[in-house]
Amino acid sequence: MPLTRRELIQNGAVGAAALAVGGVLGKSLGGGGEEEEHGDSGLSGQAQKVAESRKLTSEDVTRAVKTFVPPGNQHGDEFFLISSGGHSGQMFVMGVPSLRLLKTIGVFTPEPWQGHGYGSDSSDPVIKNGTANPANGTLTWGDTHHPALSETKGEYDGRYVYINDRANGRIAMIDLRDFKTKQILDVPNLQSSHGGVFVTQDTEYVHISTKTPTLVDPTKAAGALDRFADAFRGYSTFLATDKKGRFDLTRSFQIELPPYTQDLSDSGKLVSHGWVFLNSYNSEMASGGNMEGKPAIETGASKGDYDFLHLINWKKAEELVAAGKTKTINGMRVIPLDVAAAEGVLYLAPEPRSPHGVDVSPNGAYLVVAGKLDPHVTVYGWDKVQAAIAAKNFEGKDRYGVPILKFDAVVAGQVEVGAGPLHTQFDEQGHGFTSLFVESAIAKWSLGDPYFKGENAFKLVDKIPVQYNIGHLVTMEGDTVKPQGKYMVSLNKWSIDRFPAVGTLKPQNFQLVDLTGEKLSLLSDTPIGMGEPHYVQAIRADRIKAWEVYPPGTNPLTMEKDPNAVELGKERVERRGNIVEVWGSVKRSNFKPDNLTVKKGDRVIMHMTNTETTPDATHGFAIPRYNINCSLDPGEVTTVDFVASEPGAFAYYCTEFCSALHLEMQGWLMVTT
Amino acid sequence: MPLTRRELIQNGAVGAAALAVGGVLGKSLGGGGEEEEHGDSGLSGQAQKVAESRKLTSEDVTRAVKTFVPPGNQHGDEFFLISSGGHSGQMFVMGVPSLRLLKTIGVFTPEPWQGHGYGSDSSDPVIKNGTANPANGTLTWGDTHHPALSETKGEYDGRYVYINDRANGRIAMIDLRDFKTKQILDVPNLQSSHGGVFVTQDTEYVHISTKTPTLVDPTKAAGALDRFADAFRGYSTFLATDKKGRFDLTRSFQIELPPYTQDLSDSGKLVSHGWVFLNSYNSEMASGGNMEGKPAIETGASKGDYDFLHLINWKKAEELVAAGKTKTINGMRVIPLDVAAAEGVLYLAPEPRSPHGVDVSPNGAYLVVAGKLDPHVTVYGWDKVQAAIAAKNFEGKDRYGVPILKFDAVVAGQVEVGAGPLHTQFDEQGHGFTSLFVESAIAKWSLGDPYFKGENAFKLVDKIPVQYNIGHLVTMEGDTVKPQGKYMVSLNKWSIDRFPAVGTLKPQNFQLVDLTGEKLSLLSDTPIGMGEPHYVQAIRADRIKAWEVYPPGTNPLTMEKDPNAVELGKERVERRGNIVEVWGSVKRSNFKPDNLTVKKGDRVIMHMTNTETTPDATHGFAIPRYNINCSLDPGEVTTVDFVASEPGAFAYYCTEFCSALHLEMQGWLMVTT
Repeated sequence: MPLTRRELIQNGAVGAAALAVGGVLGKSLGGGGEEEEHGDSGLSGQAQKVAESRKLTSEDVTRAVKTFVPPGNQHGDEFFLISSGGHSGQMFVMGVPSLRLLKTIGVFTPEPWQGHGYGSDSSDPVIKNGTANPANGTLTWGDTHHPALSETKGEYDGRYVYINDRANGRIAMIDLRDFKTKQILDVPNLQSSHGGVFVTQDTEYVHISTKTPTLVDPTKAAGALDRFADAFRGYSTFLATDKKGRFDLTRSFQIELPPYTQDLSDSGKLVSHGWVFLNSYNSEMASGGNMEGKPAIETGASKGDYDFLHLINWKKAEELVAAGKTKTINGMRVIPLDVAAAEGVLYLAPEPRSPHGVDVSPNGAYLVVAGKLDPHVTVYGWDKVQAAIAAKNFEGKDRYGVPILKFDAVVAGQVEVGAGPLHTQFDEQGHGFTSLFVESAIAKWSLGDPYFKGENAFKLVDKIPVQYNIGHLVTMEGDTVKPQGKYMVSLNKWSIDRFPAVGTLKPQNFQLVDLTGEKLSLLSDTPIGMGEPHYVQAIRADRIKAWEVYPPGTNPLTMEKDPNAVELGKERVERRGNIVEVWGSVKRSNFKPDNLTVKKGDRVIMHMTNTETTPDATHGFAIPRYNINCSLDPGEVTTVDFVASEPGAFAYYCTEFCSALHLEMQGWLMVTT
Repeated sequence: MPLTRRELIQNGAVGAAALAVGGVLGKSLGGGGEEEEHGDSGLSGQAQKVAESRKLTSEDVTRAVKTFVPPGNQHGDEFFLISSGGHSGQMFVMGVPSLRLLKTIGVFTPEPWQGHGYGSDSSDPVIKNGTANPANGTLTWGDTHHPALSETKGEYDGRYVYINDRANGRIAMIDLRDFKTKQILDVPNLQSSHGGVFVTQDTEYVHISTKTPTLVDPTKAAGALDRFADAFRGYSTFLATDKKGRFDLTRSFQIELPPYTQDLSDSGKLVSHGWVFLNSYNSEMASGGNMEGKPAIETGASKGDYDFLHLINWKKAEELVAAGKTKTINGMRVIPLDVAAAEGVLYLAPEPRSPHGVDVSPNGAYLVVAGKLDPHVTVYGWDKVQAAIAAKNFEGKDRYGVPILKFDAVVAGQVEVGAGPLHTQFDEQGHGFTSLFVESAIAKWSLGDPYFKGENAFKLVDKIPVQYNIGHLVTMEGDTVKPQGKYMVSLNKWSIDRFPAVGTLKPQNFQLVDLTGEKLSLLSDTPIGMGEPHYVQAIRADRIKAWEVYPPGTNPLTMEKDPNAVELGKERVERRGNIVEVWGSVKRSNFKPDNLTVKKGDRVIMHMTNTETTPDATHGFAIPRYNINCSLDPGEVTTVDFVASEPGAFAYYCTEFCSALHLEMQGWLMVTT
């Protein structure tokens, strides 16, 4: 039975079961290799003395040995976590099993270490162009949620990663050659997005949809909440990309959706290739009003017993777009809801109570939905879905005319996994791993045929408590057609007592779980004190072929030779009226020119080339008081463009400690009156 | 002999000696506990199998056991690193020995996860007020360099930390109860600062000085570089603080300095209490002109054989200030250079070739200077300095009339440590640890009496290679009167081949070194992929008493009850003309009000109170398209204040995954036309 809303709200913080777990410590290590649950892992000699003095159990020692990457072992981490940063607006790259943070990538939020959004035309346009209608100025933050690595034949190809801005309905593209953000697109008709950035099997499209529905006519906000079902709409967006992985709106399209709140989504794979699946909640279309005596949103949105899984046939949608059966809204071709419903592009299937995630099994044959107010995962069979569609086995249509498939006709199985299930990942053996928010645990269970049959199918196999309040989880390459198993990471929202106190805002907790044993076992806790990662993907490290240095004179925005690149000895300054244009060089340990005199009010354009070819020979270029800081990686060209509005002497300098004479690597911008 | 400039520049990247070290791996672990350099650390059982399969040596296993903090062990990290973030503009808090990142603190750069600078009056004023003269707009980044923990009797007291903005001559104050930035001060007469934020022994003052000298009259920039010695000046700044640790300019003062480039500095301790010491380089006052055929700055600044250690008697300076012997410049009381020289406030002592750091020994009796173009550390004896001053044992005066102490009269010893020495830290036994940038190593050496005597004094004891290009280093509480020994962290600027490739901009490398053995030994590498930490301090974890939750209704800016805090059920909306003012509540799982209708053009002021009292029950409050995101920690009150300039329906929502119904925690801001 689904938990009642009241039970869930009362239980919203941390389940008692979860709290009882904390203490894996306790047994201290005996003299010479005491037997424990996880086998004989005693130590002798120096390491044992250390383990004793640090009160490590033999299980802890095994954990240490399983996760430690020795200093200097460049390939000790087998996988990369490509993690959202949540409302930090950034992304994080971490290693597995060490969980060390290899890089923060500046995405929606300016990041000065990378020079992202701090005065350089190779990065500023990314952020500036990311606001389609800057009525309130340029947007300088986002809420990154769902990273989606590009795929070829359903496997990660290590080329690009896409991520959404849940707050503002935007999407960004990061090139994994240099791990930098190349484009932010303000997606037409989306005001917010949660559900899924994901790619189709060969990255034909990058998909992003609305979260809270969009008010179709923003000039008619008065009373719109009272006409919610008519005034608002959702949009499923299929973004085409070009050869550089950038979005190409001319080949993209949207499908208009009912104003339910579309949530986390996934792409069909292999047998279900050509379709995508969107979860939803609040099919009640509750809009609150708790100061006016109406039900609060979380109450109104949880009334119904069912919400709707959306099944979208994008191959069919492509045909409709080609046939011109679209209307254009804010520059985007949109298949109207009635057309999508009538033409077999959009179907609905009932899902139990406020579902959160839908995840497609590696073979594409199962769609797994978890309803956060229901203790089961519900598994839809793709063969059953196809048969029901062919037989028009509908229990009716929703108010917008969209056919609703019969629940019993499409469900292959249900597994009772525990309280508050959210998201499911997979291993290579046909297991699902489902996060349980309320219970603070992860359930391992079995899929059906061909992985498991008869009594062994759709069965709870194991469960592990996590600390605390897990949202997403990830297995290695766990949402591709070829999961790699081995490790799982639990993305816990609360850490409570797991780390030393660092103030009222506590870190999140990434927990690494070992998948190689018979039982799930916890390896390590890692605090995330710099944002709230929402979802991560995990990719085998050897799939990414990152550049060590740029080819000389590269502009990272285009990834091509910059026409303003200079060679050493060719530096020059040109003055035209009130424009001062500089082609300068940057190397250990100087800028050339190291003196530049301009008049107050001049427009100063500085094209700066890092002429180094040595890996890691990065220089910064900062101008005090002008809010300018660029990162010039070896081979990189960047341009700063500013008005010399403040008179005085400004010591521009290198912000990367580059050489013994780094401190001397400076110049003087003299702004005369 | 000092290396030549040419040798150093050629050797600027990575010394050959350092590159030869990388491979600590190689010996794989034998069957049952093979003897290795660091003793018997074999394993048996499961852990050994894992070690073998992961190709860990027995030394690696010991390293793992020495650094691993078991999951759930809240107090497994004995020390906090309080780290600058370099040109990220932030600070980082990490644990030792795990080196896990516990928190990024938003300081000079807006940080949306913490709501720092994203629409809340409890944080925005911090950044806004941090720009005294916003000719080019509000400064939204900084280059954090030197954190200085507050001290009582020369020991860290765990209350506050101060940090400078090297780029813009500013300083910030962070309260360690909630690890949040409370104040950014744009320090008068400083345009940039490098040398030392440090506190005096009882935090009587927080000291910050110029780096590149300031053009005294910014309206006279034309030709100023040709009159450098006259047109520019340095400033040593003594900032007084109030009971809340905030800067109080009315009790602060500066001392005018020659326009040498003042560099990293330190405070006197115990016997030298009452004095501070500032390094400098570029006493040549070179200002470049490499496009005009003049010597480049790094050449001109390295010509002389000596630069100057500045010795400042601040107790004496206080007397002069009290006696009114100051002039007021840009609101700051300044002791003029000639007065400081004449009245015994300022002395100089020669330092060999382009020194970088000066560090005072724990007992206050030695001042250690490292000249980056000289392979020695030079150790000045405080007793000798005092005697020389008393005897007026001067070798003359500089061009500004400042007495120069005789080198031989004040030096207690010199130790040849290696190429490119920069900074020194100390242990509790009288050792100095000096970073060697060019050599990529750390030298351990002995101080003199009372720690070591005769032949044992001023002697090189050990050396360890680091990977690569070390800048600062830190021992645990190593710049207090009571260093704790045990660990040392090497802050390496380049990582080159130590981590998997994550693009052209590579992480830095923090290396943890074990101080407990006879020989220095490397424990772990930690990538820092989110800024370039310049310096860190390391404090015993139990000295910091951070808050778990705010007292109900706290405004973090004042750390007091906010007059606009509301209790549950007392929420209200007031409308006055075109002002809409809201007193709202925030709790699991709703905002109250969850509907708010305003007119386009209205000024909207929302006072939001998180009414939770549970630790970790943080909520976010974001308004799409309005660039607003606040973090409302339990008990916190924040105010957002904006003009409703864009019409439409905006789904404000909670950005912290707070409960099972977190997604339903939203409201509608309706902006009507």
